[in-house]
Amino acid sequence: MARPSKREEIARAALQRFHAQGFHATGIADITTAAGVPKGSFYNHFSSKEESAAEAIGRYGESRRFDMLTAPGRPPLQRLRAHFEHLGAETVESGYAQGCLMGNLSAEVGDHNDELRGALRDGFATWAGHIRQVLAEAREAGDIAPGLDIAATSLFLLSAWEGTLLTARAEKSYAPFEAFFRTVFEVVLR
Amino acid sequence: MARPSKREEIARAALQRFHAQGFHATGIADITTAAGVPKGSFYNHFSSKEESAAEAIGRYGESRRFDMLTAPGRPPLQRLRAHFEHLGAETVESGYAQGCLMGNLSAEVGDHNDELRGALRDGFATWAGHIRQVLAEAREAGDIAPGLDIAATSLFLLSAWEGTLLTARAEKSYAPFEAFFRTVFEVVLR
Repeated sequence: MARPSKREEIARAALQRFHAQGFHATGIADITTAAGVPKGSFYNHFSSKEESAAEAIGRYGESRRFDMLTAPGRPPLQRLRAHFEHLGAETVESGYAQGCLMGNLSAEVGDHNDELRGALRDGFATWAGHIRQVLAEAREAGDIAPGLDIAATSLFLLSAWEGTLLTARAEKSYAPFEAFFRTVFEVVLR
Repeated sequence: MARPSKREEIARAALQRFHAQGFHATGIADITTAAGVPKGSFYNHFSSKEESAAEAIGRYGESRRFDMLTAPGRPPLQRLRAHFEHLGAETVESGYAQGCLMGNLSAEVGDHNDELRGALRDGFATWAGHIRQVLAEAREAGDIAPGLDIAATSLFLLSAWEGTLLTARAEKSYAPFEAFFRTVFEVVLR
């Protein structure tokens, strides 16, 4: 397998550093050190830290396992639950140190920079669209109340998920995840 | 009225700057400039930026209008709705630039520093406790399903609220608030 290009190595390191440290705490030197490239090479590939963060948001979105939501063989609500359980395990396994890059950057810099905000908005819209599709299938299968507003519910579930990551990290506790799964699957989607 | 003490002016300025800019983007000089005091005076009153941020979280919690949740004269669920509507208006009126200081710092530094995390954990626990009390009253009044797990639901509602602020700011849109109010009051607490 070919060695990843220098640009690819920088992009991967940027995603990793922004996820671990946030936007302001990550310097260009942190990224290039993590990538094992000279500091000056960053600007051969990205015009700014903001540009590399916007790309990191896109890459992170692609890692959110939307395939778990569409994979055939399981009922829609089981797929939705498995999707969130998979993502929650990432945070639990990191000792509650890692949340969602998209949620983190929304909180830290979402409203300071239009390029980043655009990437966050697009990432959330894509994610909510996948959840909405699962809810449409669940409604079709008679698994949820026929009158449930699936557009509002999909957006709400995504917001609730992002907030659950915040409170679970502040508490270093699984209780917010438990409350999420219990309320979403036993109350909202009953 | 007596002029606020220098310590009080620094503490107020710190809360305002951390809320507007986040933790890492706020320097001691930003705080002392906003407070109108010499930079060196910060360390006469706070041992570190972390200590002033932990105090800011406590002060911010006290501004969350928990009194709206307990004020007599309105049914419990109306009080809960008014509480969130009041807080949501802060974000809308700021042009979606301001979220919740507690949510923001959970995302940015909650897992990097035990002092800050402790303040966030305590702040969320206090808030969830107030919501739980309202839900207990609502159950007593027969306004929600008798079998609803009010401990899990209060924690879930707080998480969902924090996440709603994140997605509303990323989208600069009221849609996530609308989805919150619709799902919480027409589905979860029906």
